[in-house]
Amino acid sequence: MRAYRMTAWGAAPEPCDVAEPVPGPGQVLVRVAGCGLCRSDLTMRRMPPEAGERLGWRMPFTLGHETAGWLPDGTPVALVSPASCGSCRLCVRGRDNACPGGRTGRGYGRDGGLAEYVVADRRSVLPLGGLDPRHAGPLTDAGATAYHAVRRARPHLAPGGTAVVLGAGGLGAFAVQFLRILTAARVVAVDVSAERRAYAASVGAHETAEAPAGRADAVLDFVGTDETIAAGIAAVRPGGAYGLIGSAGGRLARPWFGTLPADGEVFTFQGSSIADAQEVLALAAAGLLVNQVQEFAFAEVTEAYRKLAAGTLSGRAVVLL
Amino acid sequence: MRAYRMTAWGAAPEPCDVAEPVPGPGQVLVRVAGCGLCRSDLTMRRMPPEAGERLGWRMPFTLGHETAGWLPDGTPVALVSPASCGSCRLCVRGRDNACPGGRTGRGYGRDGGLAEYVVADRRSVLPLGGLDPRHAGPLTDAGATAYHAVRRARPHLAPGGTAVVLGAGGLGAFAVQFLRILTAARVVAVDVSAERRAYAASVGAHETAEAPAGRADAVLDFVGTDETIAAGIAAVRPGGAYGLIGSAGGRLARPWFGTLPADGEVFTFQGSSIADAQEVLALAAAGLLVNQVQEFAFAEVTEAYRKLAAGTLSGRAVVLL
Amino acid sequence: MRAYRMTAWGAAPEPCDVAEPVPGPGQVLVRVAGCGLCRSDLTMRRMPPEAGERLGWRMPFTLGHETAGWLPDGTPVALVSPASCGSCRLCVRGRDNACPGGRTGRGYGRDGGLAEYVVADRRSVLPLGGLDPRHAGPLTDAGATAYHAVRRARPHLAPGGTAVVLGAGGLGAFAVQFLRILTAARVVAVDVSAERRAYAASVGAHETAEAPAGRADAVLDFVGTDETIAAGIAAVRPGGAYGLIGSAGGRLARPWFGTLPADGEVFTFQGSSIADAQEVLALAAAGLLVNQVQEFAFAEVTEAYRKLAAGTLSGRAVVLL
Amino acid sequence: MRAYRMTAWGAAPEPCDVAEPVPGPGQVLVRVAGCGLCRSDLTMRRMPPEAGERLGWRMPFTLGHETAGWLPDGTPVALVSPASCGSCRLCVRGRDNACPGGRTGRGYGRDGGLAEYVVADRRSVLPLGGLDPRHAGPLTDAGATAYHAVRRARPHLAPGGTAVVLGAGGLGAFAVQFLRILTAARVVAVDVSAERRAYAASVGAHETAEAPAGRADAVLDFVGTDETIAAGIAAVRPGGAYGLIGSAGGRLARPWFGTLPADGEVFTFQGSSIADAQEVLALAAAGLLVNQVQEFAFAEVTEAYRKLAAGTLSGRAVVLL
Repeated sequence: MRAYRMTAWGAAPEPCDVAEPVPGPGQVLVRVAGCGLCRSDLTMRRMPPEAGERLGWRMPFTLGHETAGWLPDGTPVALVSPASCGSCRLCVRGRDNACPGGRTGRGYGRDGGLAEYVVADRRSVLPLGGLDPRHAGPLTDAGATAYHAVRRARPHLAPGGTAVVLGAGGLGAFAVQFLRILTAARVVAVDVSAERRAYAASVGAHETAEAPAGRADAVLDFVGTDETIAAGIAAVRPGGAYGLIGSAGGRLARPWFGTLPADGEVFTFQGSSIADAQEVLALAAAGLLVNQVQEFAFAEVTEAYRKLAAGTLSGRAVVLL
Repeated sequence: MRAYRMTAWGAAPEPCDVAEPVPGPGQVLVRVAGCGLCRSDLTMRRMPPEAGERLGWRMPFTLGHETAGWLPDGTPVALVSPASCGSCRLCVRGRDNACPGGRTGRGYGRDGGLAEYVVADRRSVLPLGGLDPRHAGPLTDAGATAYHAVRRARPHLAPGGTAVVLGAGGLGAFAVQFLRILTAARVVAVDVSAERRAYAASVGAHETAEAPAGRADAVLDFVGTDETIAAGIAAVRPGGAYGLIGSAGGRLARPWFGTLPADGEVFTFQGSSIADAQEVLALAAAGLLVNQVQEFAFAEVTEAYRKLAAGTLSGRAVVLL
Repeated sequence: MRAYRMTAWGAAPEPCDVAEPVPGPGQVLVRVAGCGLCRSDLTMRRMPPEAGERLGWRMPFTLGHETAGWLPDGTPVALVSPASCGSCRLCVRGRDNACPGGRTGRGYGRDGGLAEYVVADRRSVLPLGGLDPRHAGPLTDAGATAYHAVRRARPHLAPGGTAVVLGAGGLGAFAVQFLRILTAARVVAVDVSAERRAYAASVGAHETAEAPAGRADAVLDFVGTDETIAAGIAAVRPGGAYGLIGSAGGRLARPWFGTLPADGEVFTFQGSSIADAQEVLALAAAGLLVNQVQEFAFAEVTEAYRKLAAGTLSGRAVVLL
Repeated sequence: MRAYRMTAWGAAPEPCDVAEPVPGPGQVLVRVAGCGLCRSDLTMRRMPPEAGERLGWRMPFTLGHETAGWLPDGTPVALVSPASCGSCRLCVRGRDNACPGGRTGRGYGRDGGLAEYVVADRRSVLPLGGLDPRHAGPLTDAGATAYHAVRRARPHLAPGGTAVVLGAGGLGAFAVQFLRILTAARVVAVDVSAERRAYAASVGAHETAEAPAGRADAVLDFVGTDETIAAGIAAVRPGGAYGLIGSAGGRLARPWFGTLPADGEVFTFQGSSIADAQEVLALAAAGLLVNQVQEFAFAEVTEAYRKLAAGTLSGRAVVLL
């Protein structure tokens, strides 16, 4: 079958021909309908071999961690990509996103969804109901990660409150939607791009801006540079929350005491849990989510990654298989 | 009456003779029994006038924000020092420690407890039951601040978990006790001073060390230097909590993404709430707390502050009035 | 000034002429704009004197506990009716609705808002912003009580979940709206009246029915008869919640073990907190609430109560003053 | 191998000779060290066949749902008895105790631990560290069920609060211990038996009584008769909790409105989660729990059940295998 794979550390991924996988005990075979492309895929080709090996990744592997398709009986399903054991201290508390087994996953270190077929264990298979499996993949990753951040910020967002989303790209635009659906807070989307601000407004932001102004009960930072961290932290009211989701590697230059939000909360993320993905799919099934995607054929994967790197996509790229 | 007062910006405080205060509507007159001295008192004499005025502080004022004494009918009471309005958005949610009115308080910007009498409004008066008002003052500040931090860390500390306390001085030693009383976590007290480690062990630390080792579900940092922030953050498990209480002004030099505890929580504090103080007094009344104090007469206040600055006290200094 | 008052135990209330009240220390005088009528007003005239005295009610008193008006400077405000001390163990934890002082309130045991003027202490005065004070009164009671119930049910209502509202009258219709605003649950409104079902659908119920069918994550019972309690409890999924708000005095005839929702939660209410009222006003100010009222002049109060008792009102009766 | 089994509906269980079980994929074989006997075992022999079949129970099956033993490599482990799928909406949220798959379990409907060997899937195997597997079984059921109840009551039990335990038998005595370990509440154990009251005091109850008196923040009812439900509900403060764990089948005769604790919480239980069992084992491993057991040989099982039914055991019966 066709598969788009990482074949060696430091090398660009490429289309390959590999054998169809065979499900082991407790696993099912899934015919892939569509698989989303993620910015983190681009970083894998630059990852030092030691780093990959420390994570337990096995080369080669098929890329793609936003996968949906059909079970053998035709049932449409989406797949949760992070591996989780289901039995450790964290998994049995609903915190599978922090399971030590999760450093590899479908599409990072293990075979992912940019292929005609993948295998999946029962825990990672989520029924789609009437949702289209060609487009549902991004909901389980881009969607669920943004959802997880909103879920953590939500206790801070009583009616009358304000939420600021820094960076209104794919994840940020999902966050805007979740904030509107699950809270009555005023939602401000901040982005340097007029196009992304317009899109954020179209999916529900009450207000958009090029930079944060005023104070908020929660700030979700999908960028993560020195600048957004400084501006985001400064914008949080006493008792509020700042969530860092963007991986741009920023630092905070100032002393923590007196700078971090007084009696507030700073959090980062580690993917999303199975429950997060279930809830995002439930929102989509209820017709509450806009999931903007741009379709590509398997022959166009390299081209699609090029557009993703260049920032010229409109919406999430999904590859149809 | 006698009072120990800040009389001018930039000047050392001094003993004075002032008129007894007269309670306004809704206030009571409290005969002070004892008042604790706090390291933050020492910083006030170095505070720039602009900073004080920005906080709304009025000079002169009597020092002392760890006050307990008797009501006119003889009832022993402790006083909560931070001002809070009781009616704002934060106060009516039990978060009076973040009330905008709290930037001044009894002993910082307004007359405090290093005097024979103080006035207090009803919200700030907490009955002591059988507790000794000469020694109870520190429970409402040093005790309640440490309690607030433990209360925030507690959801992370299931049985089988581990808590690390960085800095086993006055607040840290209270934190060790609260962790033992309210959780079943293993408690590790970290301090460079052998004497403080021994005291931490005597009030319940399972283990003591000169530096943190291994991972913990919660780290409470009562120091707050560059070193303790770096070591404390590095010691937190995914999903765990790091709380900064120490005001040493440290920074974190590393990128936040990948350094902050994954899916964890970083928090700072802003004093403590009235509810915190009530609960600390309840623990003391139940005989569960060691509250180590060293008594001084009013004539010895200057000397007591000198010992506090030099670090040669054993336990919290309380001035008997 | 004009006031509509309870003058004696067991007697119908009546319009009176009384002196304007004079605000005490910490109180303000409020010119009433409108006051809502509540079904509980009707029960007061049938209350045994002993019961009223046990609650600490003083006769005579002016009725009306859904009051809004203007401060002396013209600022429009709504008033929280339950008395609360602001300093007890419950008040300082944001649970003022359970304050022991709350058994009397503005309009029950103390002078209420069916008068040209009332006095109010600072804690109970909530700014209305652009909201119309003639109509805002019901938001602080009918609205806030329904809100409190929804707030308690909310942790049970993840996306994909279902909420059932039993009784789609005034409070139930508010609950439907709060559920839609604050959760992504499917909302089912159950009522025997086709008119109330239609109204519930118009304010957002996804589905309406004459009786509950299937299972729900939360059931809010605004009726409270034997029948609704039995049906409501039976409709709750394991781990779900049943909230009793209706005061019809029903019982559950079955054994609790095996009948109550397994690992679930059953709760009743006690009014609403100041925070609840603040949040309801914030939702209204954001234009998110339909607050259906029917206006009456002061001369029509007796007639308005008659219609309330007969169930022939459309929306909440508010008396303009 | 030897096994003590239910062989037919309505019949008393009996010792049998059966083949050793063979682990399937993802399962392990456990050599049983000890298995606790539970009052619910006694009810199974009286269960109507329809009821058992509705639950999906398959006859015959080996009794025993408090099992501990050794893995093939000698590692001592305890087993969680309720079945749970690990992938449903409830399991992935840490609420496996409410998993629809949990109506059968090891020892009820499927082969349990009163045998030389059992098979177990990975999720249900909990390492014991230094704990004795002959005695650890009851911790996973009697212990974990009481723990689950205490965990639910805990948010209501701030320092200064009071908890009442109705029924100080096996589960109640565990609850007393958990309350002491995890809260600073005053713990009152209520029982008609002087012997059980003395035992409750010996494991930490501050106070014992024959009937509840005064008000409490949480009441845990391990009896569940009409009398304990009425007395327990009446003893709860506004905002407090009443938890029903005892299965005696009691009802509440009074109207719910005005009788249930105002703004409080009533809950029942459904076993305990894997996380509960992990935490109980962690407390035992830390030396914090008294786990009173009485040992029996396999040949004495029938006799041990007789004593259990007669109420003449001291502590939980464990059968050594």
